[in-house]
Amino acid sequence: GPRLLFTVDTIVERVDFDHSYATGADVGYKALAVNVSDIAAMGGRPTKGVVTLTIPPDTDVEYVDDVMTGLMDGATRWGVDLVGGDLGGGGEVSISIALLGTPVAQPVLRSGARPGDAICVTGALGGAAGGLAVLRSGREPSDAERALIERQLRPQPRVEEGSIAGNTGCSAMIDISDGLAVDLWRVLVSSEVGCDIDDSLLPVDPALKECSEVHDPLEIAITGGEDFELLITMDDGRMDETRRRIEAAGNTLTRIGVVTDHGATIGGRDVDEWRSEAWEHLSGS
Amino acid sequence: GPRLLFTVDTIVERVDFDHSYATGADVGYKALAVNVSDIAAMGGRPTKGVVTLTIPPDTDVEYVDDVMTGLMDGATRWGVDLVGGDLGGGGEVSISIALLGTPVAQPVLRSGARPGDAICVTGALGGAAGGLAVLRSGREPSDAERALIERQLRPQPRVEEGSIAGNTGCSAMIDISDGLAVDLWRVLVSSEVGCDIDDSLLPVDPALKECSEVHDPLEIAITGGEDFELLITMDDGRMDETRRRIEAAGNTLTRIGVVTDHGATIGGRDVDEWRSEAWEHLSGS
Repeated sequence: GPRLLFTVDTIVERVDFDHSYATGADVGYKALAVNVSDIAAMGGRPTKGVVTLTIPPDTDVEYVDDVMTGLMDGATRWGVDLVGGDLGGGGEVSISIALLGTPVAQPVLRSGARPGDAICVTGALGGAAGGLAVLRSGREPSDAERALIERQLRPQPRVEEGSIAGNTGCSAMIDISDGLAVDLWRVLVSSEVGCDIDDSLLPVDPALKECSEVHDPLEIAITGGEDFELLITMDDGRMDETRRRIEAAGNTLTRIGVVTDHGATIGGRDVDEWRSEAWEHLSGS
Repeated sequence: GPRLLFTVDTIVERVDFDHSYATGADVGYKALAVNVSDIAAMGGRPTKGVVTLTIPPDTDVEYVDDVMTGLMDGATRWGVDLVGGDLGGGGEVSISIALLGTPVAQPVLRSGARPGDAICVTGALGGAAGGLAVLRSGREPSDAERALIERQLRPQPRVEEGSIAGNTGCSAMIDISDGLAVDLWRVLVSSEVGCDIDDSLLPVDPALKECSEVHDPLEIAITGGEDFELLITMDDGRMDETRRRIEAAGNTLTRIGVVTDHGATIGGRDVDEWRSEAWEHLSGS
């Protein structure tokens, strides 16, 4: 098996963040977080990274410093050695980061889910999308809403959880970057399987109930992106140990359904319908 | 020494290319070429790459296919295994490529030039900048001008030449992406040395004489970017073998001056002045 994981991801102004609510440090931090999350979802730990920062010519030098501060904050937190970079001009701010990682065991792919496997997620879902709605409202957030905003601006890639699942032999894994419906669908397509998800089991972020921008917390938990929790499939027999170890690491693991050999539903509704709804949210935002 | 080279570079619409003269295939090809050139300049061969393509939402699918064609053309040519990628939205087209490479010997850095070393360049200089001037003029090119345009749109990273120089023990190397004056200055600063360049020895691209957009070919050879030839410093005793091997590989190696312990001139004029002029060209373009 490969001894090296390798990924690249780019975040772009107005698509992935907006200067009206995200500081340069937020942007630098998140650019690294999304890449670290990719490595985590393969059951790996990040090692080295290189960065390209593209900025409009009239950008303040303070903004660049601020981005670097956020990058270094994340690099220290996740043990990434930033070994190179490049600063270039463009019409909008974007940050591309390429990251190398080392798998803790065999790299975990999206394609390994088998009928009968349990489908689980770490942590709680929907918080980051709720935080974005609050930020876009422009109003002063409540304390509960501040927690949602933190999930949007300062995501925590689940490196420890991904390593645990890699070590305990999960069958497939993906990080939930575009929402449960979209990322679950990616696993189903790659693995050529179906699913049956019980929506009453979904770990909906509890702060969403106290957020007046969000009318249907369950829907946001299914369609909202950027939580960067992990979706994991595994043999039921491995669940107890995996859950115990993830809880010891300070997070939760929730069984939300089962891999089937055909048909794909969340709460009885087709995953494709949820997925269309999720993309409508994304393109309408 | 490290066994892995790792680089990332981004090219952006309107800064690094323009849709009015560059096809999607040109852009994909060049995005990979500039990264391969980075690896070549460290005395390495490219191995694996990952790509992020950012496009405005209204981009034709044909354009994306065209970019992929150019990428795959370069990947085949330079032996790069493109192992992953990501497509995202943005306000302008940009392509980020991260590349891994293997050094053929010890990696060559910019910081190794020593007083007394010969300063050499591969190939001819100024052609790509001349080609850009012709493209921007919008008029029908002559045959000589077509050769210049080819240098602008389809740069050839000097992988074989970089490997040869790495193997014969050059002291420092850089690819000439921002022009001789700028990239030479980078080597001088990293190595804490000076230089004395004889401008009458510069290998000015012969097609520039037949290009009516270019009034001073020598100036363009000093300040024009994107030729992606290599600037190499080495002990004089190693020059003959290196030149012979580079000629056997189908290129030339020209000795243009010497590393000094202080002072930095090209044709008697301060490198800093040339460098300012080069940046004025870049920002005015």
